[in-house]
Amino acid sequence: MPGGSSQTLRPFLWRAERLFEDREIVSRTLEGQKRYGYGEYADRVAQLANALDDAGIEHGDRVATFCWNDHWHFETYFGVPSMGAQLHTINPLLPDHHIQYIVENADDQILFVSPSLLEKLEGAADDEAFDGVQQFVVTSSEVPDTSLDPVTSYEDFVAGHDTDYDWPDLSGDQPAGMCYTSGTTGKPKGVEYTQEMLWGHTMATLPQSGLDLGADDVVMPLVPMFHVNAWGLPFTCTAAGAKHVYPGPSPEPEDVARLIEEEGVTVTAGVPTVWLGLLEYAKENEVDLSSLDRIVIGGSAAPESLIETYDKQFDVTVLHAWGMTEMSPLGTASHLKPGMDDISDDERYAKRAKQGLLVPGLEMKVVGDDGTEVPWNGEDFGELWVKGPWVTQEYFERPEANEEDFEDGWLKTGDVVTVDEEGYVKIVDRAKDVIKSGGEWISSVELENALMAVDDVAEATVIGVPHERWQERPVAFVVPSEGADSDALKEAVLATIEAEYPKWWVPDDVLFIEEVPKTATGKFDKKVLREEYADESLVEGKVPDEAAPEDE
Amino acid sequence: MPGGSSQTLRPFLWRAERLFEDREIVSRTLEGQKRYGYGEYADRVAQLANALDDAGIEHGDRVATFCWNDHWHFETYFGVPSMGAQLHTINPLLPDHHIQYIVENADDQILFVSPSLLEKLEGAADDEAFDGVQQFVVTSSEVPDTSLDPVTSYEDFVAGHDTDYDWPDLSGDQPAGMCYTSGTTGKPKGVEYTQEMLWGHTMATLPQSGLDLGADDVVMPLVPMFHVNAWGLPFTCTAAGAKHVYPGPSPEPEDVARLIEEEGVTVTAGVPTVWLGLLEYAKENEVDLSSLDRIVIGGSAAPESLIETYDKQFDVTVLHAWGMTEMSPLGTASHLKPGMDDISDDERYAKRAKQGLLVPGLEMKVVGDDGTEVPWNGEDFGELWVKGPWVTQEYFERPEANEEDFEDGWLKTGDVVTVDEEGYVKIVDRAKDVIKSGGEWISSVELENALMAVDDVAEATVIGVPHERWQERPVAFVVPSEGADSDALKEAVLATIEAEYPKWWVPDDVLFIEEVPKTATGKFDKKVLREEYADESLVEGKVPDEAAPEDE
Repeated sequence: MPGGSSQTLRPFLWRAERLFEDREIVSRTLEGQKRYGYGEYADRVAQLANALDDAGIEHGDRVATFCWNDHWHFETYFGVPSMGAQLHTINPLLPDHHIQYIVENADDQILFVSPSLLEKLEGAADDEAFDGVQQFVVTSSEVPDTSLDPVTSYEDFVAGHDTDYDWPDLSGDQPAGMCYTSGTTGKPKGVEYTQEMLWGHTMATLPQSGLDLGADDVVMPLVPMFHVNAWGLPFTCTAAGAKHVYPGPSPEPEDVARLIEEEGVTVTAGVPTVWLGLLEYAKENEVDLSSLDRIVIGGSAAPESLIETYDKQFDVTVLHAWGMTEMSPLGTASHLKPGMDDISDDERYAKRAKQGLLVPGLEMKVVGDDGTEVPWNGEDFGELWVKGPWVTQEYFERPEANEEDFEDGWLKTGDVVTVDEEGYVKIVDRAKDVIKSGGEWISSVELENALMAVDDVAEATVIGVPHERWQERPVAFVVPSEGADSDALKEAVLATIEAEYPKWWVPDDVLFIEEVPKTATGKFDKKVLREEYADESLVEGKVPDEAAPEDE
Repeated sequence: MPGGSSQTLRPFLWRAERLFEDREIVSRTLEGQKRYGYGEYADRVAQLANALDDAGIEHGDRVATFCWNDHWHFETYFGVPSMGAQLHTINPLLPDHHIQYIVENADDQILFVSPSLLEKLEGAADDEAFDGVQQFVVTSSEVPDTSLDPVTSYEDFVAGHDTDYDWPDLSGDQPAGMCYTSGTTGKPKGVEYTQEMLWGHTMATLPQSGLDLGADDVVMPLVPMFHVNAWGLPFTCTAAGAKHVYPGPSPEPEDVARLIEEEGVTVTAGVPTVWLGLLEYAKENEVDLSSLDRIVIGGSAAPESLIETYDKQFDVTVLHAWGMTEMSPLGTASHLKPGMDDISDDERYAKRAKQGLLVPGLEMKVVGDDGTEVPWNGEDFGELWVKGPWVTQEYFERPEANEEDFEDGWLKTGDVVTVDEEGYVKIVDRAKDVIKSGGEWISSVELENALMAVDDVAEATVIGVPHERWQERPVAFVVPSEGADSDALKEAVLATIEAEYPKWWVPDDVLFIEEVPKTATGKFDKKVLREEYADESLVEGKVPDEAAPEDE
């Protein structure tokens, strides 16, 4: 074997401990703000590994977390995988029956839980699905009152244990992490991250083409650590030797602003709503973002206006990124290319509002309805397929889902995109929502965005309704504002679409409803509307039953 | 297998082709300056792969190059490994018998050669060691007169071939590259680079902790492409989407200065002598280095004065780096740490003159004479051992060398180093040259540097001579300048060492010689001196024969 040694996470920790002993990890907790260096961090990680050993955790066992972003959670990030176990981060926002399903499916042995999430966990844990959990550990200094049993506090759990650990040599394909995707339908699907997937993802996020992190950076992940490893930032920052700032339980805009200012945060990351919230807060309050260089936004699309506002008001660059649980998660980042320095502000914001350029190491293709690749012209739609060292090639114990979502080593992302001539990916819809009309695709998302910008439209959604001749035709469902005039509103809605889009994008009808049906996580549940209107003759011509889009 | 797809080089090429089609590759050749984009580059790489197919090259075969840094050589960098063959870059500066040995040892099937290296190759190739080579390809448009047979030109070789190639899916452990270390003694040792070693090395060199390369960079590797893949830069630049500038055959300082200015080079890389040469040139000529941000220096230690001069005179940062053929090659880079912004210029140059900080992903330890780890205090010496995903764990078909240079997955680098409290590695000697005296190590290199700074010393070297009580004692060998007074010089030499070093570092004797023996590559050949003086009683006490340092 001429090759090198395995790709594992532990050398990142070792380097941070030895080269950046005093570089800080700052953590907002209910017990106040904790602050220590990588030196102490590494000692505590070793203590945790020894404690897990003593608790009977063995190579390949799963250890779960149900936790906010704090130093305790961060300690499990290196402690669990580096001893050969697998860190399973659970999303506490899931409904109880999903939590029960994934704890049982993953066969979690020990479960770490944040104090403020105890009540939620107690509700879910009152079920035989939790029978396999041998120990609950509350991440705090003292154990609160709880029905969980057996239970201990994190500090009691690790107390007295040695600050050295005889770390095993692991192979690159050893499962190190696990995260379930919370699909809108069906059971959550488990994604396993091997040591080398996390290693490769760390290496891919470090450079300029990724998130461009270095030892000088102070990084605050607002994206939860239960959501695809906080986009890998705890690993990437450690590899870089950067300072970490963890915002703790339910950070409010006030906390975010304070931590940025006090800790000199240079890079932060999270979903768009967080950054909209901070802007709102900044209207009423003095906010000093002078240390901040970049906000990494992902999870859902960042409005162009948000990108513009942060640039103009705070001189902060929004780095739009896209990824998936199945991708560890980074796929694209919307960097400007050489020669784009002198484009206009508007062109720049438009580029930055796209999901961006594929990072080095991955491959992608855009597959149209007929299975052939779609040209990169910024207009034609297709489903994005990706492949690479940190993209999983299967779900955990879900052969039927594997058949649907993977093909020849490619992950079919379920995202419908355009790619422009310069290679910038733009997500225009989810595959199941895109409207297929006359051999062309219509983006339901684009139509919805246009509709929601119309005065007196409170909410709007667009679905494809079966159509004999055109396969599907768009129909709009609009929730009018109180007291709106229906006829005038319908006219305004149609006029807006006619003005901005090709004629065949114009909905065949506009129906008024009282509310858009929603899923448990608050997303539009188009499935309900599709079921309801599949056999209605909303559009010209008869709609045959058998042409109804398949329910998933 | 939950893991992702294999780590291979090809996706880097694919991404550059699709995202940076027009980003340029510039190449200085004897036929003039060639210039094209990644789009055309990728087409030509595919043509080369098709041509190699037609020439009978199969999965796992070795294809050799004997070439300068130009676009032809760069085309082999992706074309050969991506079709599943192995690129063996031969150092044309080796003596003929070494070239013969490695061509035979590697079983090279096809050999690419630069026109200006034809004569050298013809000499070496007139030997049965070359019987396995089935085709010589001269990297040019037309075939020059040559005794090589069968021979063709590169342009004839690829002409008419398809610009698409059905690239195979390769596994990460597929050998992709090969390079022989040119030790001063013994036969060269082959180091194989697998696809995932080169992938990992590329990822490790991209970020701030490595060489910090991005799409905006214009990179000119002066380090030869036959020397550990030009430190991996052709791969790294492609992954980044950077512009490449290849300086062609025997670039003079004038060429270097012109290319930097004309092409807007931002980063360049090479051994110290190149940069000393450029400084000399700049004394007599107008030189515009305003585009240049960094010079990566490796291969041998960069003098602090060089680092200072480039900083003060040209506002160019010297990034000192260290690596080895066995390491693909990057091991350390001398970046400043957070908080070092306000140290004095002198402290900064001193830090930057060290070999620097280990890059993320690797591990190291410093092993003292007694086999235990040496503390990081900037003073204690030990041999540097390294381990990591892009560090090989064996030589090609050399079990006896493997036994000597590898242990438990660690590469024993043969470099003796100190590491300071902040983790900066400094090479103080080669393991075979360090002087072991009374349980402590004395750096022969440091003593030599000090001696050569003394007036009237033309050359000087220091070796350890066997000593009954102290194991070894240093003895200096000095070549005096013409007309120097021996007695006064000896006094001056000893006074210099006494003033700057601990008492036990002071050589027990200073001997005058006419010339320091040298190896074929011009390095001091201390072996000769050690043999000559092993049984001489140069120092107090009898020197027993059996205590003579082992010859290697």
